[in-house]
Amino acid sequence: MPVFTEHSSSSRDLRVLPSFAPPLPRLAPPFKRDDKDEEKYEVVVVGAGPAGLMLTLLLSRYGLTSTSLLSIDTKPSTQKTGQADGLQPRTLEVLKTLGLSTEIENEACQMWQFAFWNPSSDPEKVIERTSVVPEIIPPARFRYEATIHQGRVERIMETDLMSYSERGILRNTEVVDVGIDEDGDAEFPVRVSMVTIVDGVRVGKTVRAKHVVGADGAHSVVRRCMGLSLEGESLDHIWGVVDVVVETDFPDIRRRCAIHSPAGSVMVIPRERISTGEYLTRLYVQVPGVVEEGDQMLDGGEDGKSGDARQRRSKITLEGILKQAADAIKPYSLCAKEDAVDWWAAYQIGQRVSPEFIVNDSKGVARVFIVGDACHTHSPKAGQGMNVSMMDSYNLAWKLIYHINGLAPEPSGPSPTPLLETYQTERHEIAQQLIDFDRKFSTMFSGQMGATEGLTQEEFQQAFKLGNGFTSGCGVEYPENMLVIRDELDDGVEGRRSNPIQGTEYISGVLRPGRRLLNVRLLRHADGWQRDIHDDIPSTGRFRILCLTSTDLLDRRSVSVQTLKEVALLEAQFPKSTVELIILHPRLHRSFEWKDVPACVKQQAEMRFYDGSALDNAYSIYGVDPAHGALVVVRPDGYVGVVACLDDVQRVGGYLKQCIRTVSGN
Amino acid sequence: MPVFTEHSSSSRDLRVLPSFAPPLPRLAPPFKRDDKDEEKYEVVVVGAGPAGLMLTLLLSRYGLTSTSLLSIDTKPSTQKTGQADGLQPRTLEVLKTLGLSTEIENEACQMWQFAFWNPSSDPEKVIERTSVVPEIIPPARFRYEATIHQGRVERIMETDLMSYSERGILRNTEVVDVGIDEDGDAEFPVRVSMVTIVDGVRVGKTVRAKHVVGADGAHSVVRRCMGLSLEGESLDHIWGVVDVVVETDFPDIRRRCAIHSPAGSVMVIPRERISTGEYLTRLYVQVPGVVEEGDQMLDGGEDGKSGDARQRRSKITLEGILKQAADAIKPYSLCAKEDAVDWWAAYQIGQRVSPEFIVNDSKGVARVFIVGDACHTHSPKAGQGMNVSMMDSYNLAWKLIYHINGLAPEPSGPSPTPLLETYQTERHEIAQQLIDFDRKFSTMFSGQMGATEGLTQEEFQQAFKLGNGFTSGCGVEYPENMLVIRDELDDGVEGRRSNPIQGTEYISGVLRPGRRLLNVRLLRHADGWQRDIHDDIPSTGRFRILCLTSTDLLDRRSVSVQTLKEVALLEAQFPKSTVELIILHPRLHRSFEWKDVPACVKQQAEMRFYDGSALDNAYSIYGVDPAHGALVVVRPDGYVGVVACLDDVQRVGGYLKQCIRTVSGN
Repeated sequence: MPVFTEHSSSSRDLRVLPSFAPPLPRLAPPFKRDDKDEEKYEVVVVGAGPAGLMLTLLLSRYGLTSTSLLSIDTKPSTQKTGQADGLQPRTLEVLKTLGLSTEIENEACQMWQFAFWNPSSDPEKVIERTSVVPEIIPPARFRYEATIHQGRVERIMETDLMSYSERGILRNTEVVDVGIDEDGDAEFPVRVSMVTIVDGVRVGKTVRAKHVVGADGAHSVVRRCMGLSLEGESLDHIWGVVDVVVETDFPDIRRRCAIHSPAGSVMVIPRERISTGEYLTRLYVQVPGVVEEGDQMLDGGEDGKSGDARQRRSKITLEGILKQAADAIKPYSLCAKEDAVDWWAAYQIGQRVSPEFIVNDSKGVARVFIVGDACHTHSPKAGQGMNVSMMDSYNLAWKLIYHINGLAPEPSGPSPTPLLETYQTERHEIAQQLIDFDRKFSTMFSGQMGATEGLTQEEFQQAFKLGNGFTSGCGVEYPENMLVIRDELDDGVEGRRSNPIQGTEYISGVLRPGRRLLNVRLLRHADGWQRDIHDDIPSTGRFRILCLTSTDLLDRRSVSVQTLKEVALLEAQFPKSTVELIILHPRLHRSFEWKDVPACVKQQAEMRFYDGSALDNAYSIYGVDPAHGALVVVRPDGYVGVVACLDDVQRVGGYLKQCIRTVSGN
Repeated sequence: MPVFTEHSSSSRDLRVLPSFAPPLPRLAPPFKRDDKDEEKYEVVVVGAGPAGLMLTLLLSRYGLTSTSLLSIDTKPSTQKTGQADGLQPRTLEVLKTLGLSTEIENEACQMWQFAFWNPSSDPEKVIERTSVVPEIIPPARFRYEATIHQGRVERIMETDLMSYSERGILRNTEVVDVGIDEDGDAEFPVRVSMVTIVDGVRVGKTVRAKHVVGADGAHSVVRRCMGLSLEGESLDHIWGVVDVVVETDFPDIRRRCAIHSPAGSVMVIPRERISTGEYLTRLYVQVPGVVEEGDQMLDGGEDGKSGDARQRRSKITLEGILKQAADAIKPYSLCAKEDAVDWWAAYQIGQRVSPEFIVNDSKGVARVFIVGDACHTHSPKAGQGMNVSMMDSYNLAWKLIYHINGLAPEPSGPSPTPLLETYQTERHEIAQQLIDFDRKFSTMFSGQMGATEGLTQEEFQQAFKLGNGFTSGCGVEYPENMLVIRDELDDGVEGRRSNPIQGTEYISGVLRPGRRLLNVRLLRHADGWQRDIHDDIPSTGRFRILCLTSTDLLDRRSVSVQTLKEVALLEAQFPKSTVELIILHPRLHRSFEWKDVPACVKQQAEMRFYDGSALDNAYSIYGVDPAHGALVVVRPDGYVGVVACLDDVQRVGGYLKQCIRTVSGN
């Protein structure tokens, strides 16, 4: 359109830029480094694999600058990186709340199905497909597992990091020592000594930090320096793995498969399309037998038993792996396309976990944390590699920034850092569940189907199904702690409903403190936008009060109206923007306008006020009776913290005041 | 997992990179520039607004390098850019096939609803909402119109361009003359003179090109130099427009609204959230009366009538626009939030189109093209600004690269460049429909509702609904031409079905040559992946043969089997990768394996072979009888070119051979 008079504000030029995550407010004094000081940081993150990058990215988005945060890695780039390749639905949900899922959604392989192949009673067939089940069983925003090169996931995170961090990752840098030394500087008690390779020359330095996070993998230097160790008493299996473009007539090569044949076992993991237009496949094969007490391998020790294991591992060759896969898949043919072997490896697995994920200083302040493979090792069989590790960081990051930014309340109990302690409580439990599941699943997979141990195909498949809530990440449930309030709500007051939640199908979305809020589709009042509730809980470090109002919403003296007013007042007690309101209403007996609901709804939640029945039936999915409603607090990591009856704003307030410092006059 | 033996190929390091669109093959000799020559390009694109950027991006993805392609723009960056703000569903579909829709999906405003407000019979109400209708009525992959700053859409395209083009856009560069001069160099007959501002100094140069595209807007220099002009005889209306954060109690401020009040008319367009967390609103208000024959405004002419118009335009102020909006919205309040006016303008609109979009050289070779606002101007009322312009380029780009890369067949008729001529045939028709619709809709909107002209609210709303197929981009239908074969298929052969398509609900997806293929959800045979068919027709410049096989697929001597074999042979006649097969099957009477279908299915379409009934019922949506099936050619721009009965591979071959050169021994 031809324009004749035109006036533009300077701010309009900003509208072309991508959006950035809003930093969290900081109540603590700003961090300033005096040039005369020793080099100091608020946080040093050691290792930039999936766990370290996730932590660094989150802390940077929350507002820590390169002055305050140092992240280092020994590798020169994301290219020469590890071997994990699976992203579970919950991890995808989290990446989506960070705006980082698109490339993965578009270009990873999506595994929708899991096929089980077993020995056939028909000798000509040798093996047969006994069933195909969905790869992901519980409801989730993404109904598949994505498989893609770990380095690509790291590259996506590192690219995004550069929008928030001046330095990004300091690469070619190795940590050589970590220790707590309160005599020097009690506020920055952790010493980290490191060596950076600059133009081929090793340059050493020591820095001080308030907190150090060891995300430096199974052979973690941070863990070793802090005197922690991985423990476990399981047996190790030896496996071979290869990423390859295969030529095969096996009909399920593009499905995840567990193949048990008389000639051995192989697991097929379809992978992404590569630039040639071809598709990668990952194959796992098992070398018969187990190795007892393989733990010493991690620390370089050696004895008779591991010598035996070493000998067996050394026999594993690419040709051997491919031959074993080809044998197991017979009568179908399978071979590697010429020059199309991407990578292969032999490894030995056991399940081990560190009993402590945190080391405190002498005052009990949590100072050093370990995340990811540094605190748990397990097999790749359940596709957990990147996932549990990134989720460790996702759990820790917001707690750490609340502590550093002075958003956490003064401690009332014995620990000076109770919020930080919950990292251990919550993630150690998950790590333990992970290795328990992996031990069971892995042993089952390694076992001979139908052999004398008596493991049937059905048992194996059943184990997969039962474990799927856990492996998908969608059924993870944190234990009770200050952030997960699950008491039974029975306060004995007569005539009062004690629990606003009906049902126990938590895996299907029924609200449960300690589990993630399931995504539902909602119709927005303001504009009729059909939205996902997950898009209103982006990973910006904010708490959300989810008000599921009841059918009395349009009655001016109702419980719903009174509750909304009280919740609005409660929200105002916390630092600006740290608590957001999301309001749902059930099917009502008439249509209504803004003027029919309390003014605070539009003032505080204009764009987060939804019809919870027009698309998905959110009340039914969440187990909330529309006649009674409910209040829910969703933590910054998307997990439900507490549920309360609609009129019990006090319970919500009590929870939030444990997590966030209140401010006056806000 | 601890790894003990590990071997990695160098190609593995590439797996961390994002994917790139594969370039098209080139049969023409490579373009090489001799340093002694005059500066030469195969294509010069003038203007880097939405139309110019789309063209440059597509040509670059198809394989033209910066040596071969020069794109220039007068502006220094995307920041100081135009005023369009709406992206229609079809445009979003296209951006999705380029992998560029994510930021828009996540961060644009999604307009899902259109509210109509009209004078109320209740004098206290003044105005009332008479209805709310969906903003997008026909089925589409995206069911909303997205609104977002034009500069941001340009920035998204330019960022992606930098992955494919060394130079990107040459900015601060103005074209001063364009002409065809065949005497100098008949292969590069278009001369383009331009001036670049380098460090404040104007530096002029003249280059030669095979083809020039004028994407330089309503005041196009390319158009003027080639002696083309915009024509039209409509009346002009004068409008004011403002982008602002408003404070209002009007309940529909986040919906698109057409408000007709006794005090005037205003159109409300909700816009994206900005970095303050607030939401922009665009308001259009009309200055009463019309201007006759305003065309001269475009070229700077002046007479008594336009002097009158100028006077009226000069009276338009920000305050006036806001006051008129506030008056029309009464009794609701509306004012601009302090310091929150992003941009405002006054403009005069008419509907005009250039009769010619192409200028040929003396041999009849299409040499100069105009796209976007350079060939059609219209009001912003229907939200078409960026859309029709980008779609002009989307239509032209693949035809141009087929011509340049030598992929187009030798011409058989009088025109040496018949494929290029179809740009005029197809897009001029759409431009004409656009201005016809806009004239009608805009006049209706400007008219007083319920006044003596007798335009009723119902008529206006009906006009919106009828026009929605066109405005959404989803109902666009190209006229018959060599790329759109619509003859009735009645060849009179006895016992033979003449038309494989049943039904005429083309807007709902029934296949129709000249319309875009509607997206459907399909279940992939190879892996159970639930996919969108649009994800198999990315904008990579390839033709696709869509085989909707019939229920006889599993019978080895059936029509389906015979057809698949013939189609596979046909595909091999064209340059490698220019034709891709997508194969669907209807609900069959039994499950089956790869071995039950012809080997060519797995060989040529392993990852594009689908169950067309498991998710959406594709056969029913497309109007294809599962008992008979159909063949469809989908053009590189996603439009259906031809449909044929399943056994009529010849018809498909005939169509494709008109579009693509065949090769022997491929």
